Amino acid sequence: MDINEQLNILKRGVSELITEKELKKKLELAREEGRPLRVKLGLDPTAPDIHLGHSVVLRKLKQFQDLGHEVYLIIGDFTGMIGDPTGKSVTRKQLTEEEVRENAKTYREQFSKILNPDKTKLVFNSNWLSDLNLSDVIELSSKYTVARMLEREDFSQRYKSGKPISIHEFIYPLMQGYDSVAIKADIELGGTDQKFNLLVGRHLQKEFGQKPQVIMMMPILEGLDGVNKMSKSLDNYIGINDEPKDMYGKVMSIPDSLITRYFELLTDVPEDKINEMKKSMEEDRVNPMNFKKELARIIVTEYHGQDAAREAEKEFKRVFSQGKLPEDIPEVIIEQKDLEDGKMWIVHLIAATGLVKSNSEARRMIKQGAVSINDEKHKSINEDIKVEDGMIIRIGKRRFAKIKLPD
Amino acid sequence: MDINEQLNILKRGVSELITEKELKKKLELAREEGRPLRVKLGLDPTAPDIHLGHSVVLRKLKQFQDLGHEVYLIIGDFTGMIGDPTGKSVTRKQLTEEEVRENAKTYREQFSKILNPDKTKLVFNSNWLSDLNLSDVIELSSKYTVARMLEREDFSQRYKSGKPISIHEFIYPLMQGYDSVAIKADIELGGTDQKFNLLVGRHLQKEFGQKPQVIMMMPILEGLDGVNKMSKSLDNYIGINDEPKDMYGKVMSIPDSLITRYFELLTDVPEDKINEMKKSMEEDRVNPMNFKKELARIIVTEYHGQDAAREAEKEFKRVFSQGKLPEDIPEVIIEQKDLEDGKMWIVHLIAATGLVKSNSEARRMIKQGAVSINDEKHKSINEDIKVEDGMIIRIGKRRFAKIKLPD
Repeated sequence: MDINEQLNILKRGVSELITEKELKKKLELAREEGRPLRVKLGLDPTAPDIHLGHSVVLRKLKQFQDLGHEVYLIIGDFTGMIGDPTGKSVTRKQLTEEEVRENAKTYREQFSKILNPDKTKLVFNSNWLSDLNLSDVIELSSKYTVARMLEREDFSQRYKSGKPISIHEFIYPLMQGYDSVAIKADIELGGTDQKFNLLVGRHLQKEFGQKPQVIMMMPILEGLDGVNKMSKSLDNYIGINDEPKDMYGKVMSIPDSLITRYFELLTDVPEDKINEMKKSMEEDRVNPMNFKKELARIIVTEYHGQDAAREAEKEFKRVFSQGKLPEDIPEVIIEQKDLEDGKMWIVHLIAATGLVKSNSEARRMIKQGAVSINDEKHKSINEDIKVEDGMIIRIGKRRFAKIKLPD
Repeated sequence: MDINEQLNILKRGVSELITEKELKKKLELAREEGRPLRVKLGLDPTAPDIHLGHSVVLRKLKQFQDLGHEVYLIIGDFTGMIGDPTGKSVTRKQLTEEEVRENAKTYREQFSKILNPDKTKLVFNSNWLSDLNLSDVIELSSKYTVARMLEREDFSQRYKSGKPISIHEFIYPLMQGYDSVAIKADIELGGTDQKFNLLVGRHLQKEFGQKPQVIMMMPILEGLDGVNKMSKSLDNYIGINDEPKDMYGKVMSIPDSLITRYFELLTDVPEDKINEMKKSMEEDRVNPMNFKKELARIIVTEYHGQDAAREAEKEFKRVFSQGKLPEDIPEVIIEQKDLEDGKMWIVHLIAATGLVKSNSEARRMIKQGAVSINDEKHKSINEDIKVEDGMIIRIGKRRFAKIKLPD
């Protein structure tokens, strides 16, 4: 494949590339010298639960692998094991070495669903960072100025509004950047929100006499709500370990406005075909639902195979298009002793199904009108429900439970 | 001696004390527990050449020693051996370990002229700083904020005027402060220009669960010009290794306005006596010259003993009060072959005496009217001088040379 064709593949979906010229040169050099490029991705060491938001970057890494290059996944275990010395940051909780290794194992399992494990190196940055002493840290931090660091958006906002920034927070981006020096990265990938840190790596490589890495930033994928970043905490995500029918159903629930964006970032469907879809929807020639089904089928196939995708599609049709119940609904056993006069407070009943996480979520779902019992909506939380064997409880469009009431 | 008397001695000449209450408490506790206080002074590891400016702080340390306490001189060898990683700072040139040890030896010799060596510990901060690793540095730097660091005057000025501050410069004050943690300092001394750094030490001790050190700041001593800080580079200093007659003469050259300040900071003359002097000079009852002579005698006695002081005084009288030549004038040999028709250009002649450092200094001295030859002023640099054996050359008030002209 000639270099321009390679470039076209690699540029697809990319938000910003610094710089295209350098990437081209690196691709050419790699070909001449017969050496693979080192493509870096930095990872948080906290427990991973990978969803399609992450897959945008991972699929890009896979493209590099398919072109013969090597992927370095850098696990930031060093910072993870330090935690946050001020104890203020919840997201930077201190991990034990065991937790870090355990998380890394989970990463490996999940990544192998997208990446080629033979061309993926999983490395821990404690390998080099724990060797640094005070004198190394001084050298490293002499290579960056306070003013430039304060340009990072979150720092500048906090500084201006008088919120404290501890000095060690200036060291973290340098450490992340130093990872690029340590592995001699040719290219680093990241989300657009990582631009500052990615540039620090580029800067430090120059300071340490290396060729600066190319930076490739991928867009942040919107979640099921079509507005916010896909994330676990917002519960608007499609996990790559989701069951086929959940995955299928979730894709079917995205707003039409996201269809072509998902095609671009989550599939290999050629761009001209995607443009054609866009046009046909704009001109109202095709029902967007058809494209959504195709998208759902492609995505489920990628993670679970063709058979599972076909099965999920059938199931979806049964339940949603034809209004029928899904084939296997989980049973929830309610004990007689938990009932009073055969009745249970609706909030407790919904919570007991396990379809929600807490009483308060149950309450919220009921108030939102998302709860049906035997196909009848229940919107009041001040109700006791007569519980019967075989009762079907449904929350939202896709969550079902069947009550089992032993005699 | 009761605690209040001790306090009165220790407070003499002090510019700022943080806090007097804490110092009192520490003195009380030391007495109760029978343990000496640890009094810290941080020192630059570059070649020392101690002058009376330094002695202000050293004399204060000596007072602590006389009250039974211990002095810790912390040599900042760690920073010295790193140098300035950006290579921009001339004052922070990189020293070898050997140079550091050599300088420390010089320090020890010079300090023992003021301090009690039995109660003086000379320690190198590389002892603890070279053990710090990245994780320790992160912990240390988490204990101070960027905003507070930017309050330091030089940093805030540079930041505001857009001059770069490298991040490692934020680590230096933390290192100096950490020295206080490492030796568990009870008190730290320094010049008023060190206030920020001294406070960092106090802050870090609290963060590391120690009782915060008391900070005692001494005023910056003006040099012979009466205006600028006494310093070697301004050549307005009295070195503690100066010859008795030079030391005496230099003290005699200070402006009258400095007399009582020197008494206060450089001698043990009681304060009420100093106040009396001040008054009598204000009321023109006494010629300031008399006090200056007393000051000169006291200072020379401190560093060279009574006999040397008496000798220096006599010499001073001979030369200045009675207009006679000093007793031993260094001879300078001028060779016949360096003359033309027995003459020499005045600039070369003055330079040849070795009383000035260069032709350009010779030129300047001549133009200033500071040069006499056989008691006759020569102000033109366009003159050739007939050189004769026994000729007396004088520069300023105190520098003499006698020409020796071999046949």
